[in-house]
Amino acid sequence: MQFELTKEYLSDLKEALSTQLDSAIISDINNLHPADIAEILDNLSNEEASLLFGFLDKEISSEVIIELEEDVREILLEKLGAKEIAEDVIENMDSDDAADLVAELDDEKKEDVISFIKDAEQASDIVDLLNYPEDSAGGLMAKELIKVQIDWTIPKCIREMRKQAEDIENVYTIYVVDEREKLIGTLSLKRLLLAPAKALVKDLYKEEVRSVKANQDGEEVAGIMEKYDLVVLPVVDELNRLIGRITIDDVVDVIKEEADKDYQMASGISEKIDSDDSIGLITRARLPWLLVGLLGGIFGALVINQYEDQLQIYPEMALFIPLIAAMGGNVGVQSSAIIVQGLANNSLGFDSLFTRLGKEFLVAMINGLVCSALILVYAILYKDNTDLAATVSIALVIVIVFAALFGTLVPLILDKYKIDPALATGPFITTMNDIVGLFIYFGIGHVMYNVL
Amino acid sequence: MQFELTKEYLSDLKEALSTQLDSAIISDINNLHPADIAEILDNLSNEEASLLFGFLDKEISSEVIIELEEDVREILLEKLGAKEIAEDVIENMDSDDAADLVAELDDEKKEDVISFIKDAEQASDIVDLLNYPEDSAGGLMAKELIKVQIDWTIPKCIREMRKQAEDIENVYTIYVVDEREKLIGTLSLKRLLLAPAKALVKDLYKEEVRSVKANQDGEEVAGIMEKYDLVVLPVVDELNRLIGRITIDDVVDVIKEEADKDYQMASGISEKIDSDDSIGLITRARLPWLLVGLLGGIFGALVINQYEDQLQIYPEMALFIPLIAAMGGNVGVQSSAIIVQGLANNSLGFDSLFTRLGKEFLVAMINGLVCSALILVYAILYKDNTDLAATVSIALVIVIVFAALFGTLVPLILDKYKIDPALATGPFITTMNDIVGLFIYFGIGHVMYNVL
Repeated sequence: MQFELTKEYLSDLKEALSTQLDSAIISDINNLHPADIAEILDNLSNEEASLLFGFLDKEISSEVIIELEEDVREILLEKLGAKEIAEDVIENMDSDDAADLVAELDDEKKEDVISFIKDAEQASDIVDLLNYPEDSAGGLMAKELIKVQIDWTIPKCIREMRKQAEDIENVYTIYVVDEREKLIGTLSLKRLLLAPAKALVKDLYKEEVRSVKANQDGEEVAGIMEKYDLVVLPVVDELNRLIGRITIDDVVDVIKEEADKDYQMASGISEKIDSDDSIGLITRARLPWLLVGLLGGIFGALVINQYEDQLQIYPEMALFIPLIAAMGGNVGVQSSAIIVQGLANNSLGFDSLFTRLGKEFLVAMINGLVCSALILVYAILYKDNTDLAATVSIALVIVIVFAALFGTLVPLILDKYKIDPALATGPFITTMNDIVGLFIYFGIGHVMYNVL
Repeated sequence: MQFELTKEYLSDLKEALSTQLDSAIISDINNLHPADIAEILDNLSNEEASLLFGFLDKEISSEVIIELEEDVREILLEKLGAKEIAEDVIENMDSDDAADLVAELDDEKKEDVISFIKDAEQASDIVDLLNYPEDSAGGLMAKELIKVQIDWTIPKCIREMRKQAEDIENVYTIYVVDEREKLIGTLSLKRLLLAPAKALVKDLYKEEVRSVKANQDGEEVAGIMEKYDLVVLPVVDELNRLIGRITIDDVVDVIKEEADKDYQMASGISEKIDSDDSIGLITRARLPWLLVGLLGGIFGALVINQYEDQLQIYPEMALFIPLIAAMGGNVGVQSSAIIVQGLANNSLGFDSLFTRLGKEFLVAMINGLVCSALILVYAILYKDNTDLAATVSIALVIVIVFAALFGTLVPLILDKYKIDPALATGPFITTMNDIVGLFIYFGIGHVMYNVL
């Protein structure tokens, strides 16, 4: 029974909602997976979404709400009072999801909601988690976990687990702690299950355990889980006491978001947007880089203006302005993308800056000479003007080499000063290379026509 | 004991390897995590890597080899005979990793290696898995899993699991099948552990189970696991019989690779490369798009050539060529990026093409008018030439709107014809918009100066 959202389903549902009759399609909604229900809600209008949300069972609605897109969730939560949010939505949630949801509320409602949570331990867990930045290990972790003490027997373990496991849907690992709550190892369910009845935890547990501190960066956490193929990672405080655990599904979201963000930056989009965001939001995300491009274009005009006399005498120089600008931009984007991606994946290795630039120089020289030879042949054949042909091809090699070195250097420098190197991709590097490329082109043209 | 690879460690290790003395740093290598050892090998020269690989314990070396970058793995496997690969490396591997490794060998060595595998079941599993395309569910799955029959008792379950679980490091879920091997549900280890001794599988298992068919696409599998927050996903054949399972760590790799590939395409890089790949490979990955840019530049020159007379009379039109070209390119990349990302994340929703283009038109109009107003003010103030100012600002709005619509349409069309829409990003869309932008600019200039 695997659901797939179709256009037909959506229009049937919309019709059922508009007639307000209690039709089969609406009453069946509670049989779908929460992630499917969330997908449906994301594709409805605000009114339809609120209406449908009212038909959901309590336990399901809390699972649905954490899967929603943030803007849809905001709309739905607005319609609920603080008491309803605390008692109907949050009560069934894991601490990490609950804290994420509470963090999205405005300050006043936040306090109200927390004060309405009945389970004191859950409330305290949430308040605890709210202290960590969203993108830190603490912000990603949940408090729910199973821990046993090193000197317990297996039957005692199982008894304790029965108590602890009640609220926990998936148990991946059992953590082993000492009497001071310090994390000292793990015990797999498999070993526990296959153990002789008289065994002790200390006979079965695995001493080696990888953990992160609560203040470590989310991207770092993602890198560790990816590198070591971990499904769950324990989080400890400064004294190495176990305080939570991060599961891979939350980290997959971090990985996706990082990749999406870098992609959007490289494409000249400055805020995270989806195609179904509002026109205002999309415009706001796109305008800044267009203004950078505009400014670049004005600088370009100034550069050309410098050489206006030259252009009046040799107007054919204008023909290759777009080519020079485009090639500088393209090469710069290529070079910076390799560096930005290497930094993001932590795969740049230990080459020195000198080695890296040297390699980039060689690649650029090869590509530059190939392109330059082609354009030389073209310009000689079709323009019958060797001065112009020489100017374009010499300028092209220099522009390509410059753009490659510049595209390599800028993200490395930004990274060194803890600025997101993705800023150096896309429109920024293209614009810079446009301007410098024009300087190089007209400078060489000047030498060619006037000096030689 | 969390290892971090540093420059110092690497140079100490390189020195130890060059002196060939059995130093502490080399003998300690077996205490590191296989993923760390792989990272070290990736950063050594081929000779150093081969040398160090020889110091690894057998069980560790097989775990290390699957974590290596492909080019390093290739070098190391070349030095090993088919018998060594079969007996030392593959014997300790899970079926999915073993099949991936065998798939990388050339055909002759592939057969030799398979013939040397002692465990007949493992050999048959590998041969089986080799039939599936690398990026399908079958290509991602492993054969190792725990399955129990619906009518078994719990003690029988545990006895059977003891046998089956021997080779399986992490057990996430126990699959429940009927007498014909058809997948009918799952049983969590937690429930099994907490169950009363006399329970039967049929009392405890969960009937609902999400599965994929072996021929489903890897990206689709990734989407399902991401959407439903799954750690492991069973794979069935056409008759719904359980044939394998896919774990999230392999899917994380698929997600990363997809994102990296789209990013590189958008940056004008046509093959997957790392910054430490060879100069030849990097050049080959970058040259194709540069040639597209070059061709675009030549077309641009042809367009301008059409208007050479006009340019001779109004040379100041040349000033804004880079601006028009750059803005068209930037807007086109923004628009196409939103569509490509929406397609990749399956988040485009159900808006009609008409709605989508209408929205894009509005966003482009706003951005276009803002940019155009700014450039109008600038051109009037500094160039004191209202004809030029009007030409540039009118052309700019039209170019921005055209580029936005074009950037939206092209990836949607490519996707419709099952061509990777990421092709439409980066240099391709930039180049196209450069050329069309020049047409629009000079066309409007022609009307302005000659007709009005």
